[in-house]
Amino acid sequence: MNAVEIIQRKRDGGPLSPQQIRWVIGEYAADRLPDYQMAALLMAVFKEGLDAEELAAWVDAMLHSGDTLDFSHVAAPKIDKHSTGGVGDKVSLPLGPMVAACGVAVPMMSGRGLGHTGGTLDKLETIPGFRTALDPPEFRALLARTGLVLAGQSETLVPADRRLYALRDATGTVESIPLISSSIMSKKLAEGLDGLVLDVKVGRGAFMKRLEDSRTLAETMVGIGRSYGTPVRAVLTDMSQPLGREVGNACEVAESVEVLRGGGPADLVDVTYRLGEEMLLLGGAAADRAEGRARLERAVASGAALEKLVEVVAAQGGDPRVIHDPSLLPSAPHRHEVAAARGGFLTRCDALDLGVAATRLGAGRERKEDTIDPRVGLRVLVKVGDPVEAGQPLVRLAWADAARLAEALPLVERALEVGDERSAPPPLVHGEVP
Amino acid sequence: MNAVEIIQRKRDGGPLSPQQIRWVIGEYAADRLPDYQMAALLMAVFKEGLDAEELAAWVDAMLHSGDTLDFSHVAAPKIDKHSTGGVGDKVSLPLGPMVAACGVAVPMMSGRGLGHTGGTLDKLETIPGFRTALDPPEFRALLARTGLVLAGQSETLVPADRRLYALRDATGTVESIPLISSSIMSKKLAEGLDGLVLDVKVGRGAFMKRLEDSRTLAETMVGIGRSYGTPVRAVLTDMSQPLGREVGNACEVAESVEVLRGGGPADLVDVTYRLGEEMLLLGGAAADRAEGRARLERAVASGAALEKLVEVVAAQGGDPRVIHDPSLLPSAPHRHEVAAARGGFLTRCDALDLGVAATRLGAGRERKEDTIDPRVGLRVLVKVGDPVEAGQPLVRLAWADAARLAEALPLVERALEVGDERSAPPPLVHGEVP
Repeated sequence: MNAVEIIQRKRDGGPLSPQQIRWVIGEYAADRLPDYQMAALLMAVFKEGLDAEELAAWVDAMLHSGDTLDFSHVAAPKIDKHSTGGVGDKVSLPLGPMVAACGVAVPMMSGRGLGHTGGTLDKLETIPGFRTALDPPEFRALLARTGLVLAGQSETLVPADRRLYALRDATGTVESIPLISSSIMSKKLAEGLDGLVLDVKVGRGAFMKRLEDSRTLAETMVGIGRSYGTPVRAVLTDMSQPLGREVGNACEVAESVEVLRGGGPADLVDVTYRLGEEMLLLGGAAADRAEGRARLERAVASGAALEKLVEVVAAQGGDPRVIHDPSLLPSAPHRHEVAAARGGFLTRCDALDLGVAATRLGAGRERKEDTIDPRVGLRVLVKVGDPVEAGQPLVRLAWADAARLAEALPLVERALEVGDERSAPPPLVHGEVP
Repeated sequence: MNAVEIIQRKRDGGPLSPQQIRWVIGEYAADRLPDYQMAALLMAVFKEGLDAEELAAWVDAMLHSGDTLDFSHVAAPKIDKHSTGGVGDKVSLPLGPMVAACGVAVPMMSGRGLGHTGGTLDKLETIPGFRTALDPPEFRALLARTGLVLAGQSETLVPADRRLYALRDATGTVESIPLISSSIMSKKLAEGLDGLVLDVKVGRGAFMKRLEDSRTLAETMVGIGRSYGTPVRAVLTDMSQPLGREVGNACEVAESVEVLRGGGPADLVDVTYRLGEEMLLLGGAAADRAEGRARLERAVASGAALEKLVEVVAAQGGDPRVIHDPSLLPSAPHRHEVAAARGGFLTRCDALDLGVAATRLGAGRERKEDTIDPRVGLRVLVKVGDPVEAGQPLVRLAWADAARLAEALPLVERALEVGDERSAPPPLVHGEVP
């Protein structure tokens, strides 16, 4: 095997053999292939793509760069959900407990926020004491005990992906559907799941701005699951405006608790139930979506879903009192409201600008090594299509540092537009695969 | 300036600004841009190309990564020749003295052989004592004294190119016309020439196998020269079979001396004169090609050209006796002839296979760090289109190591084909630019 020949073949559009892919990923993971050769190969893959067979081999090689998990000691079906990332996307927090309360085991492995998108781990860690770094034996024990674990991914799972992701980030090769798909799917398949539901976001605040790209991404990931024998279903959901009202960390935990109490904003509730229905279907816990919906609603109405979150928080070292009383969560010292300059209808509420604004406030990371401020964030008080009066507050910022507020404000102002004509709100679900 | 943004822009087909190109080459040359980012950029350039303005900026940035030369102390016009490399291509050796004998200064900077192609420096160093590594003051002094210097390129000239070339070699980004052009032209323009003649080889033994590619390469390099204000003229010459008879090192010096004595094989003589005519035209030493040809012929007939080589060899520390008597050059201990199995006409004499065969014998380098054996090589006794009798010797190998001979022989046999129909010999000159 020769790295230059492999690079040249992909560069010239030829498919790589499974042996070539296994070798090149294996050598890179073992630190025997230099970054510059992998960088050239990644750019060639960016430009030329990977076909279905190459993708299957690529994912398989990534998967075997480290440990894989085995949850066969848990009798219940194991179903996870993965979101491609958005602004205000706290779905995992209410969804995991709701689904687990219906008897489907949810070994949920999440990430941290980067750029304008938030991360479930950062949100969970606003709960005092909550531990997201669990070693595999503890993860296994907790999954058997509570049927739900909310944690970060073990360092020993798909180590090649961590190095590849950092290299892609530095070499302009992030926005590649085969590379994104193989990164996500290798990590998810390493969890040894019985099924996976993908929430593929689409719109300004999403990784994929265009519907056709999000559909291609969804189809690619579903195809990888199929080649691996793991049922995968994708729902394409809207990310043109933030999901729900809260964008931040502690504030998103509080909003998630609202949903588990039967409240919460309609869009967040709808997306959460929709993904939950798919998880119950994949886990064999419902015969159709209507039955799934009914089971999830019962789990909320009975308090079982909220109780599941309390149980998991306690099991992972967190203080369960904050779930019963979210006002105990960390809170920013100051508030600032951005009000409508004129009356009319909200015609734009840009998820990307608002996500960046929240990051500027300190709720997110510009770089991996940044720390976040759990207290700050913003509350979006209106949705596209809502009528608006002059002087009505549109967004409320929770802030701690005046310089950061000054950076965030112009972005918030740019994000919002009030016009005379009511624009129809975007559909919440743009499609599904398969 | 941000490296990832620059990579992304080129990746997406957008032109880079001169500022971006200057920055990225400058940072790389100063060791502040990591190899993996340059590797990704090189692959993006490979796939997306560089337009004329980008190329000019790229060459300019390379050029200014190190020193440039100034030969304004030499009154005569300074004209160099560059060949893209071939098999048996010893043109520089007779050409330099012929042109210098006509009053045009030739600051000839050459390279070493790599892969199946030979290098002028390796050939010159078969002359006992000859020094090809001259520091800039000595180079300047010799050019003023003799009007001809035959040397390697100073380490301080275009240092970015050395690093870029090594990186391209390791990342499958060698065969890119803008990258080849900018590599060649930055080095040549750093010599502060008044004009440059390019010998762009085409055919099996050349870098460019197809005529249209060699034409594009020639046009690109001529365009770079134009944007820099340096007159450049390219001649596309045949490299489907070796040029002349000798392929090796000492044997090619001997054949070059033959040309300077008024002899030598017709194809080698024709190409040498053709390039010499262009150099005299660029140097203002002839009004048209016919006048140039006549001047070059006189320089040979009068012995002035041979005397110029003797003078340069002595000036650069070499033993001038070997020029008067090439039998004093190093010579291999053994000979082996490959004869025709049947009669007919020579229909193939593959330059690539014969070049690789010579390398296997020890005349070339597979890797940069290899040393060459100056004595070994092969003599091609027939040309495509020549009649051949059964048992007639076609190629004579000069060898020193039986294991190497065994490796070379199958390649020589594969290179040659005798058929019943006489195929027309390929044209020596396939075109010219502009």
